[in-house]
Amino acid sequence: MELLIIPLICGIAALIVTIFIAKSVVKKDAGNEKMREIAGYIEEGAMAFLKKEYKYLAIFIVIVALIIGVFLSIQTAVAFVIGALFSIIAGYIGMRTAVKANVRTAQAAKTGVKEALSVAFSGGTVMGLCVVGLGLFGLGTLTIVFDLHTEYITGFGLGASSIALFARVGGGIYTKAADVGADLVGKVEAGIPEDDPRNPAVIADNVGDNVGDVAGMGADLFESYVGSMISAITLGSVLTAVAGRDAAIFPMILASIGIIASLIGIFIVKSNKGDNPQKALNAGTTISGILVIIFGAVACYVMFDSLKLFIPVVAGLVVGMIIGKVTEVYTSSEYKSVQLIASESETGPGTNIIAGLAVGMKSTVIPILLIAVGIFVAYYGVGGNSDAMIGLYGISLAAVGMLSTTAMTVAVDAYGPIADNAGGIAEMSHLDEEVREITDKLDSVGNTTAAIGKGFAIGSAALTALALFAAYAQAVNLTTIDLLNPVTLIGVLIGGMLPFLFGALTMASVGKAASQMVQEVRRQFREDKGILAGTVKPDYSKCVEISTEAALHEMILPGILAIAAPLTVGILLGGEALAGLIAGGVVTGVLMAIMMANAGGAWDNAKKYIEGGAHGGKGSYAHKAGVVGDTVGDPFKDTSGPSMNILIKLMTIVSLVFAPVILEYGGILLNIFK
Amino acid sequence: MELLIIPLICGIAALIVTIFIAKSVVKKDAGNEKMREIAGYIEEGAMAFLKKEYKYLAIFIVIVALIIGVFLSIQTAVAFVIGALFSIIAGYIGMRTAVKANVRTAQAAKTGVKEALSVAFSGGTVMGLCVVGLGLFGLGTLTIVFDLHTEYITGFGLGASSIALFARVGGGIYTKAADVGADLVGKVEAGIPEDDPRNPAVIADNVGDNVGDVAGMGADLFESYVGSMISAITLGSVLTAVAGRDAAIFPMILASIGIIASLIGIFIVKSNKGDNPQKALNAGTTISGILVIIFGAVACYVMFDSLKLFIPVVAGLVVGMIIGKVTEVYTSSEYKSVQLIASESETGPGTNIIAGLAVGMKSTVIPILLIAVGIFVAYYGVGGNSDAMIGLYGISLAAVGMLSTTAMTVAVDAYGPIADNAGGIAEMSHLDEEVREITDKLDSVGNTTAAIGKGFAIGSAALTALALFAAYAQAVNLTTIDLLNPVTLIGVLIGGMLPFLFGALTMASVGKAASQMVQEVRRQFREDKGILAGTVKPDYSKCVEISTEAALHEMILPGILAIAAPLTVGILLGGEALAGLIAGGVVTGVLMAIMMANAGGAWDNAKKYIEGGAHGGKGSYAHKAGVVGDTVGDPFKDTSGPSMNILIKLMTIVSLVFAPVILEYGGILLNIFK
Repeated sequence: MELLIIPLICGIAALIVTIFIAKSVVKKDAGNEKMREIAGYIEEGAMAFLKKEYKYLAIFIVIVALIIGVFLSIQTAVAFVIGALFSIIAGYIGMRTAVKANVRTAQAAKTGVKEALSVAFSGGTVMGLCVVGLGLFGLGTLTIVFDLHTEYITGFGLGASSIALFARVGGGIYTKAADVGADLVGKVEAGIPEDDPRNPAVIADNVGDNVGDVAGMGADLFESYVGSMISAITLGSVLTAVAGRDAAIFPMILASIGIIASLIGIFIVKSNKGDNPQKALNAGTTISGILVIIFGAVACYVMFDSLKLFIPVVAGLVVGMIIGKVTEVYTSSEYKSVQLIASESETGPGTNIIAGLAVGMKSTVIPILLIAVGIFVAYYGVGGNSDAMIGLYGISLAAVGMLSTTAMTVAVDAYGPIADNAGGIAEMSHLDEEVREITDKLDSVGNTTAAIGKGFAIGSAALTALALFAAYAQAVNLTTIDLLNPVTLIGVLIGGMLPFLFGALTMASVGKAASQMVQEVRRQFREDKGILAGTVKPDYSKCVEISTEAALHEMILPGILAIAAPLTVGILLGGEALAGLIAGGVVTGVLMAIMMANAGGAWDNAKKYIEGGAHGGKGSYAHKAGVVGDTVGDPFKDTSGPSMNILIKLMTIVSLVFAPVILEYGGILLNIFK
Repeated sequence: MELLIIPLICGIAALIVTIFIAKSVVKKDAGNEKMREIAGYIEEGAMAFLKKEYKYLAIFIVIVALIIGVFLSIQTAVAFVIGALFSIIAGYIGMRTAVKANVRTAQAAKTGVKEALSVAFSGGTVMGLCVVGLGLFGLGTLTIVFDLHTEYITGFGLGASSIALFARVGGGIYTKAADVGADLVGKVEAGIPEDDPRNPAVIADNVGDNVGDVAGMGADLFESYVGSMISAITLGSVLTAVAGRDAAIFPMILASIGIIASLIGIFIVKSNKGDNPQKALNAGTTISGILVIIFGAVACYVMFDSLKLFIPVVAGLVVGMIIGKVTEVYTSSEYKSVQLIASESETGPGTNIIAGLAVGMKSTVIPILLIAVGIFVAYYGVGGNSDAMIGLYGISLAAVGMLSTTAMTVAVDAYGPIADNAGGIAEMSHLDEEVREITDKLDSVGNTTAAIGKGFAIGSAALTALALFAAYAQAVNLTTIDLLNPVTLIGVLIGGMLPFLFGALTMASVGKAASQMVQEVRRQFREDKGILAGTVKPDYSKCVEISTEAALHEMILPGILAIAAPLTVGILLGGEALAGLIAGGVVTGVLMAIMMANAGGAWDNAKKYIEGGAHGGKGSYAHKAGVVGDTVGDPFKDTSGPSMNILIKLMTIVSLVFAPVILEYGGILLNIFK
């Protein structure tokens, strides 16, 4: 058990570094009074959202903890509460730092690219290190306290998943309601530019970047990070006869190595001396990946006298990186997919939409094949052909491998919205053109890293869900999940349908919330002419409130669906049908997530490509078509698409946690026919 | 074996009635010279397409027959050729009659609704009766000749599927290339109305209705009709120990009853005395359904002394009918989904598209749950809990039950494009306003029946594919298809992805073909000013040629994909992985088919709803947004969506036919690890 000290130490180390970096960010110059005023609104709005969210969360956590305590065990309930709290703390610290880093990035941009990058990236780093630090420390502690009783530890994953639901789905609705609402009235009706302080929804829009892209993304990857390890620990603990407890501890050792590698990668980015932010971020990411491979191989050899178990780790890491790269190919204007959408815009919005959907659908092919190869290599690489259990364990190790550099991934990803916010603040406080140019440069790099991050989040969600699926099967004693059994087939059908329903609900929510926002902005413009004249400050807080209310209200139905659907199918049709549901849900969920994320990203960049001068540039017929594509793409890439990640993981972890209930009461509809 | 005389007699009876009805249609008055001229162009264009298609088909059939002959058996190759030929003959007769019925419907509309309905419906009836007559006669004959050797009979299904691929996918590309091309230049650029004889693409557009909606739909349902019976015969022939040969013959008896019931239903529609075409068609459909239930129950009791095997038949029939009804709810402007899309159009094309996609995704829920209930009732209703084989046989009987009234369904469905064509001819030959009103009334009923027909085609394709899936599992000796086996999971992932790729390819094909059409129409307008002035006849045949070439050329890649993907996965990863691929493909294929068909139908009707005066009516901002939605919906509902039906059935029947090859050589990649 002494090996378990390592994850604890690494987790704490990450948290200590976090504190130092967070403090260094806060110490930076926050600029002039105007900048501080605007940043204050954003911070206020973000905190208002968190405060409101915590009220809902408190009720939710208490109810679910009670249910778990009654039907399962007190220990699981405790693990659940800790998982939820840790995710909340990570989100709180990450977002708090992000809303302080944005204005300081704008101020640093007055000095140069290098300085601005350093501040923005430091802000993102805090989120990244919080996620892995709290995730690994929490899991390590519970593993020691509960002495590897995985049925308790899974509660930690459910806690993480629950918060991810609120943060990612709620955050996705928040950010797009504000964005679409601000654009429709501000840009289209009133004809004022983006990030104009006269727009009442502009602060909500900036808050949304933090809520959706910092806290939402962080919670999503916290869930994947924790979920992948839980599946590996669960499957590894079954292998004790073969490998002692080492198989259960190995995933956490890998995560520890990942933290060390990420810290080095972060150091490399921060000590960047050049003026190319993309290059610096790439260098950090690549080096941390290589370090994981080197240190991981050593650790694996020391622990098992063989490198066999390391094959899936490398497979996962490589697959994750290639999926990110593929995402870039389909969503960057340097490649032909985006250019095709742009050229199809010349014949209007109809052909723009058709082209974008086709690109999105086509972009599923390579990631799916990569995941398939990853599964194959992971399973057979560890010897799954002679022992199925070790093969499934291999799949879970691939997920752990993919997620080992999570700290780095989240840091790079959370950097984007900070740079985006910095640009908004620069615009609103009328800073020099050169400052805006630097923030724009950082923002444009952020768009690429965001696309890569999205691809990575989907890939890791898929592999995590599949690993949890294997752990679930083990927990309900299924040795086969037979597609010739009609209830399995029914489960697959229903599970496959759920992402479609989930997508429909979240898209409709954005529509509803955005139209409330439109009405509020119109009302403010109408009732006080001074706002558009620039003499009266608009009521920002009212718009923040609308987004907050909508986000938290509109996520209830999808949330209930994600939790109730697996339990209902499990209780009515039994554990095998539920396994089918998970498999079906994972398959269509991943496909929809990739399709929506890439189509959305491609539409966004096709619009920007046209704005850059192609096909007539800004104001042309093609540009108008491009704007339509971007409007459709917004909820695709920032709400419904990312929500799929949560759906598939949440359904799986709910099934895993409630496995004992399914085992005892599942299949009541089938018993009628027996 | 004497029972097998019944299907032969019923099949021949259907064909004899067909001849009489076809002759009666041709005898009707074809109107004035102008009408005959225009109808002549359409007929010519349709025949030009068929002639070209047959050239491609001849090569394809010879190659595939040779492959089958070499790798499987001469008998299977013979059955394949017969299946292909029968589908071709049904398509030829059906389309030939349809292009004669259109102008005669326009002429009959001068007398009244009743008369016009009678001619249009007679035209559709010929397609419907040809499908079931040739399908049942062919299968019955092969069953007798091959003495229930199902490994040969499956070739008949593959033949049917191959033609369906050409007819449905090629037809779908043909019709939308012409439609979009005609609209973009004619309506938008030149500002001339729909169906204007000055538009060079107008004939291609009218030909497209026949190619896509008559021949394409007919071949699709011919494939389902034949495929469902083949699966039931295959599974039933395994049950000989339990039920003698009766279980294998029962599906064909049911089909025979379906033909009789449909003939009565057709008679009821034709003897309609009222002026409400919708009511007449509904009455015919309902009565034929009820008759199948009554006669079928009697037949089942006589054959098996029990009504147990009749439970799935009723389940299939009822599920099929409700799915059709649900389709109507999501795509008719009388319900709130379409009205929501229309009201969202007020804020522009972006929100129109988002709303339409959300409606499409949401509309998958009820059909999937219905299919799930159908599977459950069919499996457990026949006693699948004690004998899995009989349960799977039950699922195939549900498919047969759903398809028993195919003659009626196809007749009602093929009536739509005939009425649509009649309207076009009336417009182009400047007939009275009243005539056009009558054809419009028939056409609008046709839109509803088309939507219902699409829902039915998807539902039946799903159930047929699942039944064939069970037959495939039996053919490759799989007793379980285990989702915990990684290759099965890989198969499910790849299979799930294929409909996305297929959808992307077909959507891109429509885009490419439509832009060729746009260029040709522009060229004609530019090079001869007399065309737009109405003094010079445009070159219709050039546009027909472009659609024809594009349709046949663009379907090669999707076609190869549908055939090569299952074989590749089967050979590399084995029979169980291939089973996973089929299951994954069926699930996402059905979901995408429903989503695309219903979103497309809803967009279409939302546009029409606005044109009817809502939200500002024709020419308003909302209307422009509605037109964009309709443009996106066109390839959704008429090309990519329906192509999914073909994809899932074709992949399954290819697997079933090549089961012996998979059994012998499958899984070469796995053998490396053994």
